[in-house]
Amino acid sequence: MSLLVTGSIAIDSVQTPFGKSEGLLGGSASYFSYAASFFGPVRLVGAVGPDFPAEFLELLKSRDIDTSGLELRPNSKTFRWAGSYKGSMNEAVTTDLQLNVLAETPPAIPPNFRDSDFVFLANTSPTLQLDLLSQLDAPRMVVADTRDHWISETRDDFLALLKKITGLVLNDFEAKILTGLDNMVAAGQAILKLGPRFVVIKKGEHGCLLFADSKICALPAYPTSSVKDPTGAGDCFAGGMMGYLAAGEAVDFSALSKSLGFATVLASFAIEDFSLAGLQGITFEDITTRLEKFRTLSSF
Amino acid sequence: MSLLVTGSIAIDSVQTPFGKSEGLLGGSASYFSYAASFFGPVRLVGAVGPDFPAEFLELLKSRDIDTSGLELRPNSKTFRWAGSYKGSMNEAVTTDLQLNVLAETPPAIPPNFRDSDFVFLANTSPTLQLDLLSQLDAPRMVVADTRDHWISETRDDFLALLKKITGLVLNDFEAKILTGLDNMVAAGQAILKLGPRFVVIKKGEHGCLLFADSKICALPAYPTSSVKDPTGAGDCFAGGMMGYLAAGEAVDFSALSKSLGFATVLASFAIEDFSLAGLQGITFEDITTRLEKFRTLSSF
Repeated sequence: MSLLVTGSIAIDSVQTPFGKSEGLLGGSASYFSYAASFFGPVRLVGAVGPDFPAEFLELLKSRDIDTSGLELRPNSKTFRWAGSYKGSMNEAVTTDLQLNVLAETPPAIPPNFRDSDFVFLANTSPTLQLDLLSQLDAPRMVVADTRDHWISETRDDFLALLKKITGLVLNDFEAKILTGLDNMVAAGQAILKLGPRFVVIKKGEHGCLLFADSKICALPAYPTSSVKDPTGAGDCFAGGMMGYLAAGEAVDFSALSKSLGFATVLASFAIEDFSLAGLQGITFEDITTRLEKFRTLSSF
Repeated sequence: MSLLVTGSIAIDSVQTPFGKSEGLLGGSASYFSYAASFFGPVRLVGAVGPDFPAEFLELLKSRDIDTSGLELRPNSKTFRWAGSYKGSMNEAVTTDLQLNVLAETPPAIPPNFRDSDFVFLANTSPTLQLDLLSQLDAPRMVVADTRDHWISETRDDFLALLKKITGLVLNDFEAKILTGLDNMVAAGQAILKLGPRFVVIKKGEHGCLLFADSKICALPAYPTSSVKDPTGAGDCFAGGMMGYLAAGEAVDFSALSKSLGFATVLASFAIEDFSLAGLQGITFEDITTRLEKFRTLSSF
């Protein structure tokens, strides 16, 4: 089944306790599509400026990623983000932000992508997410990501979005902002009542929770001390999840649970190095080997 | 195999967002022994004053708990603790503390308890924990709990204790204080080098991590929105863990992992109500039923 992602393509500079790295390929759509491409083809929609390094484009093209929806805007500049992490690296502090192309008219979904079956709307304004959704024919599954900012500042649009999507992925802080609830199980169940058929609450190093109907799946994170750069972990998580689902037949609770196993593993590889380096050296066999290891070490 | 617990017996007053309850049976040894008694007999060592309500003693005696090591000191008073929880209830704020009997000479381990096979040294000063340990013949497994205070204020004694115990259970904040490490996987592995054969890091609503040799087990918490009072959750967790181990044959990694499943389930029942009320209405079958549910919802 076809899988589409809409989101940002960025040039990042990241500082963590393990070093500083500049001019990196970043952005939610980059991370998502690279992670998802281990499972099958990915259609990418985004925009960059002429400053976007050719090697980054080549890296995406070297995967099963259809970059025909990636607009190159001659008079614009690529989105740039700089951030730093300290201590347990649970949260980035943004040190520089240049929206550039992200402040312009967003790229449209190309006609040949409109029949996409699985769609991931990476974090952006819910107004834009709704607009992107309206350009699609009849997707089988639409999953959206978000940020605390959109929940609190554009709440009405966000609530409208929730009624039109299949699944929502968000972190625990965002779930608390959305529901006002401290207990994440209560929060997940409350979000289901706002529209989506399933909700995934990401808790970083503490794993994730899946809610659908009256069922819950709770997984720890893959336990690792190899954490160099958590940037993009959430997008690789979503890429692993959607990549697995789009490659399979069923989208029932069992498939959703298993997709979170893959999501966890993709995120665990991503954080082992800066930018996409943690995913570049691995094969699909490395992923399934770690999935089995994860299954063993989270069994009792 | 025989199971011994040394720890506090308290009269608690607790306030949570779900209500206030006073004059409750509390203390680490009470919670531990009640939880462990679902699996087999428990030997309890502690001390109380004449103000200790007869009904609390009857409650402990109604279980398979040997209270012959519970000293009643006519001229003393029972330890009293009052605390309140807010928001996600991850941490208690102590509002009143009357050490009373805990400030006196600690109770000795009675001669008929000295042959105990499994021993849980609940949170107290490592000096006292070492002294208690020296009163035992040749325990097969000794597990200690602790608090941040003992790690930072009596570090040398605590490090000496680590060289004499089989296992350490502590929470993530304490693991960070002990090792200086933010990453809990790195912290767990570092603690193993300090002496114990295994380490369990408790993360409250985020589950737990087990470290032994080069192996790791990572479990989520049992996902529940029924949280009324988290007091004693850690001691019920330890009670479930040690109760299961003492009732079984093996103490290998597989048994330790399974003991954490039971530990998680016992803690999940305990937090559903004030004091021991969450455990009082349940049977061993309720525990195994929830264990299987937990196994299912944490599988992928």
